[in-house]
Amino acid sequence: MRSEPKDPSYGERVRLSFGKQGQMATIGASLVRVALGEVEIALSVSAAVFQQHGFVHGGAVAAIADSAAGYAALTLMPATAGVLAAEFKINFLAPAAGERLFAVGWVVKAGRTLSVAQSRFGPSAAARTTVALLTATFVTIEGREGVAD
Amino acid sequence: MRSEPKDPSYGERVRLSFGKQGQMATIGASLVRVALGEVEIALSVSAAVFQQHGFVHGGAVAAIADSAAGYAALTLMPATAGVLAAEFKINFLAPAAGERLFAVGWVVKAGRTLSVAQSRFGPSAAARTTVALLTATFVTIEGREGVAD
Amino acid sequence: MRSEPKDPSYGERVRLSFGKQGQMATIGASLVRVALGEVEIALSVSAAVFQQHGFVHGGAVAAIADSAAGYAALTLMPATAGVLAAEFKINFLAPAAGERLFAVGWVVKAGRTLSVAQSRFGPSAAARTTVALLTATFVTIEGREGVAD
Amino acid sequence: MRSEPKDPSYGERVRLSFGKQGQMATIGASLVRVALGEVEIALSVSAAVFQQHGFVHGGAVAAIADSAAGYAALTLMPATAGVLAAEFKINFLAPAAGERLFAVGWVVKAGRTLSVAQSRFGPSAAARTTVALLTATFVTIEGREGVAD
Repeated sequence: MRSEPKDPSYGERVRLSFGKQGQMATIGASLVRVALGEVEIALSVSAAVFQQHGFVHGGAVAAIADSAAGYAALTLMPATAGVLAAEFKINFLAPAAGERLFAVGWVVKAGRTLSVAQSRFGPSAAARTTVALLTATFVTIEGREGVAD
Repeated sequence: MRSEPKDPSYGERVRLSFGKQGQMATIGASLVRVALGEVEIALSVSAAVFQQHGFVHGGAVAAIADSAAGYAALTLMPATAGVLAAEFKINFLAPAAGERLFAVGWVVKAGRTLSVAQSRFGPSAAARTTVALLTATFVTIEGREGVAD
Repeated sequence: MRSEPKDPSYGERVRLSFGKQGQMATIGASLVRVALGEVEIALSVSAAVFQQHGFVHGGAVAAIADSAAGYAALTLMPATAGVLAAEFKINFLAPAAGERLFAVGWVVKAGRTLSVAQSRFGPSAAARTTVALLTATFVTIEGREGVAD
Repeated sequence: MRSEPKDPSYGERVRLSFGKQGQMATIGASLVRVALGEVEIALSVSAAVFQQHGFVHGGAVAAIADSAAGYAALTLMPATAGVLAAEFKINFLAPAAGERLFAVGWVVKAGRTLSVAQSRFGPSAAARTTVALLTATFVTIEGREGVAD
């Protein structure tokens, strides 16, 4: 998206923030890759994230896809800013199954107040076998205590 | 929505199905109420579902809101049918905080193939203090092995 | 939503703004009712808004539903603010047919920067026969030339 | 998407169908390009499609973006099938302005009953300057009179 990050420590900031997310640990997600405007998260699939048919629950898919998109947006924000999701939409293209699944998030538009990011979710980080597709709007939060990541 | 359910055992069916969802147990969700076309789920909040700012992760909110809406749709389907989410959209109106939070799902349109359902999420089952609002499209699945709830 | 409007002339402001919308005239839409937090728009259906099957095009439905929701949001904003849609999502519950169709928009959450509003679309202003349901996020714009409605 | 179309006359079918759409003519849209799984539509901008600030109305943007995505989906369907939108979501990344704007739609997943397609909208058919991004779910309709395109 841009050659110069507003926060040169964006990678470290995303990693620290990810580590604070109880939800990511709870569902078995780990941070794979952080680049400027693009973030990848992996899910170690277990019955702990299944819905009633033995596929990964859409909520778990959404949690990871939302985090990948949101952290992609955060990499382009200033060091003092926090990111909050205003909304997202997710389409499920096929049941989510496999031992290890990946979400890759990228930024479509980085605005001062609002950013739009997307992510795809599937059995590999490549786009070809996408099983879910998310589009989200994130708000840049400045000056709110406890919201700086 | 209608006086006669297509499956008179819809309540039992939803309860059994909910019990099979690893994801619901993992995040601390429990089934509160099942009525024809309306289902309520509660979340016992703990750090296990937090995002980086100490609010409930949008993915956990979505998991519960999606399940409430999907099970509301299932209560209106035949006994042999399963329900799968095609897509959902969620707006976050305020940070999700509190010890116990609730999603109430209801059916907007029950079609033969596609149903549209919504759910609200907030600190009580009443609508007034909604912190998230979800709209989803569900597919009625018939004759696919392992998908009958 | 609230007893005291931030702009007591909100009704006049919405009417003047609606009159400036070429698109509303083009598709045959007229403003029916403006209340605090709720706006109703009617569509006089003609072949000019049909899609290929002779139903009202989803884009025309969306134009009216989006305007009803957006103006509902504007009624709660200060006199100096303009409203812009950040995104919307619309579900089509049934084909849109009839001589005169109505969208009713209402505000779900009126925030300082972001507002969420919904609208339903159908053959009457009442909710029972909804054929489309829209949820939108609007941005309050302050201090941008040409954007004060 | 695939080397062999289910309907070899898909291009002609889309052109004939587009010609039947009163709404496309009303707002100044024309069909630019039809390929297997990808369709491009142009909008000749005039005050007839403006919203109150002199930008293209979100509903007009949505109409064109929805049609581009829907016809992209139709190119992959059998000759006897019709396409209906179940829902779409659109994010507005920047105000839509210019003399001529373009929507390019493509298919993400072509299913038997449901297809997911996207489209981008902007001042050129290339992706770089996107001002709106749409994701939609389309239903394949078979055997309903008057719905074969």
